[in-house]
Amino acid sequence: MPFVNIKITRDGATAEQKAQLIEGVTNLLRDVMGKNPQTTVVIIDEVECDNWGIGGESVTVRRARG
Amino acid sequence: MPFVNIKITRDGATAEQKAQLIEGVTNLLRDVMGKNPQTTVVIIDEVECDNWGIGGESVTVRRARG
Amino acid sequence: MPFVNIKITRDGATAEQKAQLIEGVTNLLRDVMGKNPQTTVVIIDEVECDNWGIGGESVTVRRARG
Amino acid sequence: MPFVNIKITRDGATAEQKAQLIEGVTNLLRDVMGKNPQTTVVIIDEVECDNWGIGGESVTVRRARG
Amino acid sequence: MPFVNIKITRDGATAEQKAQLIEGVTNLLRDVMGKNPQTTVVIIDEVECDNWGIGGESVTVRRARG
Amino acid sequence: MPFVNIKITRDGATAEQKAQLIEGVTNLLRDVMGKNPQTTVVIIDEVECDNWGIGGESVTVRRARG
Repeated sequence: MPFVNIKITRDGATAEQKAQLIEGVTNLLRDVMGKNPQTTVVIIDEVECDNWGIGGESVTVRRARG
Repeated sequence: MPFVNIKITRDGATAEQKAQLIEGVTNLLRDVMGKNPQTTVVIIDEVECDNWGIGGESVTVRRARG
Repeated sequence: MPFVNIKITRDGATAEQKAQLIEGVTNLLRDVMGKNPQTTVVIIDEVECDNWGIGGESVTVRRARG
Repeated sequence: MPFVNIKITRDGATAEQKAQLIEGVTNLLRDVMGKNPQTTVVIIDEVECDNWGIGGESVTVRRARG
Repeated sequence: MPFVNIKITRDGATAEQKAQLIEGVTNLLRDVMGKNPQTTVVIIDEVECDNWGIGGESVTVRRARG
Repeated sequence: MPFVNIKITRDGATAEQKAQLIEGVTNLLRDVMGKNPQTTVVIIDEVECDNWGIGGESVTVRRARG
């Protein structure tokens, strides 16, 4: 019954990669905590680089600066 | 002053359905808890089926399998 | 499979009231959107009044001022 | 190491405005709490007006009514 | 730079188990997406059973019923 | 009508500091985006150090290691 929310920058993650994240974190909760995979919910949010800040500036600006 | 976040898969919910969710949950908080509807905030997130996992796989895969 | 998060101030909500919120919002999603109640997850967060701000001040201060 | 999530309606916020929010809230956490800006993460969610409710109705309906 | 939020019921998870969740999900994001572990943030919320609903009822009620 | 969620480690933030965060971020949204302070909601979550991970380990472990 766990609920997991993963936020990453929108950078071209493939459906296959997202499927691996879903499977991996569901298995992790089963292995570590004994949680039932059937009721584990995972939601992935892909966030625009303009909308993600770290160190006081957006990822867009950070990457442009190199 | 409550804050409610509803996450559903992106599946063609209409503006009318979303309006009913907003009105319904606002009224529920008024009826059960006495909360003031004027300051109740509701945010609905519609999540892509590739990005929603249950049972260790994405909703996309789950539906394709039938 | 919807996920709902309800945030209210920590103000003595009873287990009975919280059960009514859970049941009510689950039924709302079934009635409006056709969502399966068995997989609808609801999480209620009760937030300290010092930690909830509205209008630029905490609920604690707002209530003390009357 | 703080994490901040800002939700606003999708209303044409510019990259410049979003950069100012990121910088401003990062500086606020440094000034008030002594938090290290380098590890402060800020995520801005822009929410469609149909999906944001206040006072029991969507922002779309509220604005149409004037 | 990913951000992960894991919500589980408050059921006596140990510090060791929580450390395993943090390490496991951080490694998963490195292995699947190439994300830098040094900037991956994980927050675990432990939620009271009265405050977690599934199938229209709280986990407390569900467990009492057996 | 913005909604802001600030997550920090539970480290003895005072009511005064939390009030400054609430006031500061509310003013920031008014100044940058023209948002009405009266309907800006801010929620601060203080998270136990065992439950906050960065760099693949909990803040508790990280601080113990120095």
